Amino acid sequence: MNKYSRNQRVTGITKILTENPNKTINLKIFTELFNAAKSTISEDIVIVRETLSDLSMGRVETVAGAAGGVKYICGVSNQESKIFAEELCKVLVQGDRVIPGNFIYMTDIMYNPEIVHKAGVILASVFNELDIDYVVTVETKGIPLAYEVAKMLGVQLVIVRRDPKVTEGSTVSINYVSGSSNRIQTMSLSRKSIKKGSKCIFIDDFMKAGGTATGIINLLKEFESELLGIGVLVNDIETRHKLIEEYMSIVLFKGINDEGKAELTPSNFFEKM
Amino acid sequence: MNKYSRNQRVTGITKILTENPNKTINLKIFTELFNAAKSTISEDIVIVRETLSDLSMGRVETVAGAAGGVKYICGVSNQESKIFAEELCKVLVQGDRVIPGNFIYMTDIMYNPEIVHKAGVILASVFNELDIDYVVTVETKGIPLAYEVAKMLGVQLVIVRRDPKVTEGSTVSINYVSGSSNRIQTMSLSRKSIKKGSKCIFIDDFMKAGGTATGIINLLKEFESELLGIGVLVNDIETRHKLIEEYMSIVLFKGINDEGKAELTPSNFFEKM
Repeated sequence: MNKYSRNQRVTGITKILTENPNKTINLKIFTELFNAAKSTISEDIVIVRETLSDLSMGRVETVAGAAGGVKYICGVSNQESKIFAEELCKVLVQGDRVIPGNFIYMTDIMYNPEIVHKAGVILASVFNELDIDYVVTVETKGIPLAYEVAKMLGVQLVIVRRDPKVTEGSTVSINYVSGSSNRIQTMSLSRKSIKKGSKCIFIDDFMKAGGTATGIINLLKEFESELLGIGVLVNDIETRHKLIEEYMSIVLFKGINDEGKAELTPSNFFEKM
Repeated sequence: MNKYSRNQRVTGITKILTENPNKTINLKIFTELFNAAKSTISEDIVIVRETLSDLSMGRVETVAGAAGGVKYICGVSNQESKIFAEELCKVLVQGDRVIPGNFIYMTDIMYNPEIVHKAGVILASVFNELDIDYVVTVETKGIPLAYEVAKMLGVQLVIVRRDPKVTEGSTVSINYVSGSSNRIQTMSLSRKSIKKGSKCIFIDDFMKAGGTATGIINLLKEFESELLGIGVLVNDIETRHKLIEEYMSIVLFKGINDEGKAELTPSNFFEKM
């Protein structure tokens, strides 16, 4: 059986831990993979823990008990989050992003894995302590971001549909009023998808008046579950009357200016961190 | 400025490389982060490369030239892929997954980040050599899987919608015939989302007759772009007449048996690998 050097072991341990955020990995996995004693692996983990902490790349926690081990919790420095938000603003004001109806074209951003991954880590870091069961989103544009947050928190993703689908079994549908357009819309969720008494967060691409978020709160009530937090990439602060009070955003959208350009700034969240 | 030991540097390098699949990272990033000479970093990278290769966890490639550096290419062993497919079959035959219409309930699987990540690495490994520009999917259930594949290949995700949306600007819509139900359906894609002359792969959750895949081929023609490959999680082999000849799947669905249970086996793809 192969013997591995410390350098090699920390490489493998880093990859396995960081690819499984918020999942407890038993040390036996590592002792068997590297054919090494538990004490040796424990020393390796100290190196990984200290390095990730030094580099503001998240942290490694020890989980005690029979089912114990170590787990990686994602993280990012305040400075890096702010730089990300500033760069995102620059991208969003560039080019011909304003489309008829004074919308801002963001589809390419929401489907860019590099951007979505970074935004996902920032949002997940905020909700790390809530100990939630599900990350909920509404189709379609916010799905990749919500998926990244769910992955970083080590929980299941739940996607609310606009219409019930035959492949999802029995569903619960509710009507809600879109806060900005005042239109009645429907959202629908498979009965099987959420267990009673669950704790959830809602992740989306864009927050206008918060009608969708209000709908999610009511939908979750049908599952006897509650919403503990809301995170969005962009918060439209031009829409002043909000149905929802507390939520976290990365970037603030201040509307389209007289020159036909979008105006954006980083969320003031990063000042408080 | 901090000095880092080799153990610490390989930890940081592993995290940065594996979190940015198929992206070329200039060695300057590492020399500045760790305050170390290029020759030292090169030695560190040799360790990371050899370890990941030894553990069948992907590979590290050197990219020559001024814009050069190193990049991580995801990978997984044939044995691990097969074990994953076998375990997935076990999960899919369990419990009350058969829903009216002889569908199999897979929503929880498609939204489980741990499963989706592993399936994404397996599919991305197959398409690594194609040098594609986009990973395309159709909303909704295949989005997390397609996102993972796009992330692993370091390219943009493209999500085809069922209806045009106001927030996506001008769109191209086509009609296609669903191969199994023979119904006419519509798919729609924003003009801005794909550049002319692009190479794409199509990723989805489930392949029945291949009507959707045929639709994607025709839609891509409108963008003067071509489809180079198709990958799905589950291939329904009960539907014998397929509109598409070549595609890769992880699991084969053989229908519902007399006892009302789904029958599944790992795809024979893993035998050939």
